[in-house]
Amino acid sequence: MAVYTDITDDELAALLADFDLGAPLSFKGIAEGVENSNFLLETETGRYFLTVYEKRVREEDLPFFLGLMRWLGEHGFPSATPIADRRGEILKRVRGKPCALVSFLSGLSVRRPGVAHCREAGMSLAQLHLAGAGFPMRRENDLGQPHWAPMFAGLQAQADALKPGLAAVIGRDLDHLGAAWPKGLPEGVIHADYFPDNVFFQGGKFAAAFDFYFACTDALAYDVAVALNAWCFEPDGSFNITAARALVAGYESVRPLSGAERAALPVLAHGAAMRFFLTRLHDWGATPAGALVKPKDPLEYERKLAIHRASPDLVLFGAAA
Amino acid sequence: MAVYTDITDDELAALLADFDLGAPLSFKGIAEGVENSNFLLETETGRYFLTVYEKRVREEDLPFFLGLMRWLGEHGFPSATPIADRRGEILKRVRGKPCALVSFLSGLSVRRPGVAHCREAGMSLAQLHLAGAGFPMRRENDLGQPHWAPMFAGLQAQADALKPGLAAVIGRDLDHLGAAWPKGLPEGVIHADYFPDNVFFQGGKFAAAFDFYFACTDALAYDVAVALNAWCFEPDGSFNITAARALVAGYESVRPLSGAERAALPVLAHGAAMRFFLTRLHDWGATPAGALVKPKDPLEYERKLAIHRASPDLVLFGAAA
Repeated sequence: MAVYTDITDDELAALLADFDLGAPLSFKGIAEGVENSNFLLETETGRYFLTVYEKRVREEDLPFFLGLMRWLGEHGFPSATPIADRRGEILKRVRGKPCALVSFLSGLSVRRPGVAHCREAGMSLAQLHLAGAGFPMRRENDLGQPHWAPMFAGLQAQADALKPGLAAVIGRDLDHLGAAWPKGLPEGVIHADYFPDNVFFQGGKFAAAFDFYFACTDALAYDVAVALNAWCFEPDGSFNITAARALVAGYESVRPLSGAERAALPVLAHGAAMRFFLTRLHDWGATPAGALVKPKDPLEYERKLAIHRASPDLVLFGAAA
Repeated sequence: MAVYTDITDDELAALLADFDLGAPLSFKGIAEGVENSNFLLETETGRYFLTVYEKRVREEDLPFFLGLMRWLGEHGFPSATPIADRRGEILKRVRGKPCALVSFLSGLSVRRPGVAHCREAGMSLAQLHLAGAGFPMRRENDLGQPHWAPMFAGLQAQADALKPGLAAVIGRDLDHLGAAWPKGLPEGVIHADYFPDNVFFQGGKFAAAFDFYFACTDALAYDVAVALNAWCFEPDGSFNITAARALVAGYESVRPLSGAERAALPVLAHGAAMRFFLTRLHDWGATPAGALVKPKDPLEYERKLAIHRASPDLVLFGAAA
């Protein structure tokens, strides 16, 4: 939720000189994206977003992200499409940082998704998976299961500071996830961060998805598990089985899950909760006190971990046909 | 440069239910305004800004600010116009805070104004002064000359921390300004913060002015002095006399200065530098280390103070016909 890079009118003019988009009419930093700086740009030809990639995004990953966004746009999935300059380049630079212009998206994110939103979320996630089929690039999930134990190695004291005794519990979770993690599930391009704030609705219907900067190649059902955690918990921490059923049913209306995928959902959801718990635990410790951008609460995902640990069947009930 | 208040889709819908603006299509927090939270809203009927007033703006001043913005719009000055709800109300509430919807403005601020921009700035400031004539409300300038010595009383140690010996120099400045401050100059509505980041250009021409949240009733020539300080110094700290001449000539092409106003410009510019030095000195001390919003550098205005102290005639040279 912050603009980190400040772009002057002169720098913007120099960037736009490479494009055929006309003169700028309006340019505003927007409070979206924790990893990047985002600007809303209006020119004589239309509206665009300018994303400036800050250091947390690795520059070598950008061709994958931008290539995927272009691919999805060409394959009918509503998402921000990168705009090529006169020479066909998508990845540009401004103020010494990599950046890209993408098409403007209309829509609003929902703060508290209802059951109908969850159905749309599931349906659109399956559409994303189908649209991504055939995308020729690969990117390893660098926040996937094999990385969790090494990530946690440096965070044990922080876990115990968050909640005494938590480090040992997480350690046992990691052992369990390592042993039970499914292999051989159908893989493809996954969004890997399909949260309500990365999805736009209009009139209650799915309008577009964005923020593909965690996208990678991994089990498609893992993406469903991430979404179940992100969309189907109530503010009081309880798991909403009706919402989960709607999400899975929406998904399966477009792409039915195999038996193996369905059976794997409990451990995938447990693992997905671990992934977000670990990055939030890391960010929670790394953010200076008094910073305007508050880190997301790691305890939210600690509670989700506890639910999956104690009641893995909940997800299966949610996924029941 | 921050969104302080977070508005959910449900809160936005509840606010819009009082207006005839149609359904929301897009809603983004924008990184503009230090005092307020600003959002760019698109509905079925057009584009608007939503400003949520944070605690630094006094609620009792809002009728003056919003009334002035409406008055200026009705009197041909291009600025954001407040939008009334179905019952004719402009001042609304969201999340328990006062807020207002205003019309969208196109344009870009210039980071490094050239001489031609300074001429436009002067011309548009005079247009603002003429458009504001007859506005029936009054608001005392609570950051005007009588307030500087009391403001500085709590900041002396901070001044010396910024630069050893500075507190004594500022004290002598304040004595001088108190003794020499002009009385009886033509008064009216002034913007009081006519900086390049509060002015939009399009194609090199003035397009609109905004951020009227320091506007008040004071000497019109004081507004010119604020603008001279804000627009006519080079990044290296030197005063650009050519730019100053263009600003004053632009102003006088619309509203000629009286002899008394012209003669007062040196002390007004000295005082205007004091006003921004003092608020920046205050904010510099009040901002926690590590905060994402960096306070503006008080030394920039300390240098401007030094120039006006040493060479008051500079402004007069700039104002020469």
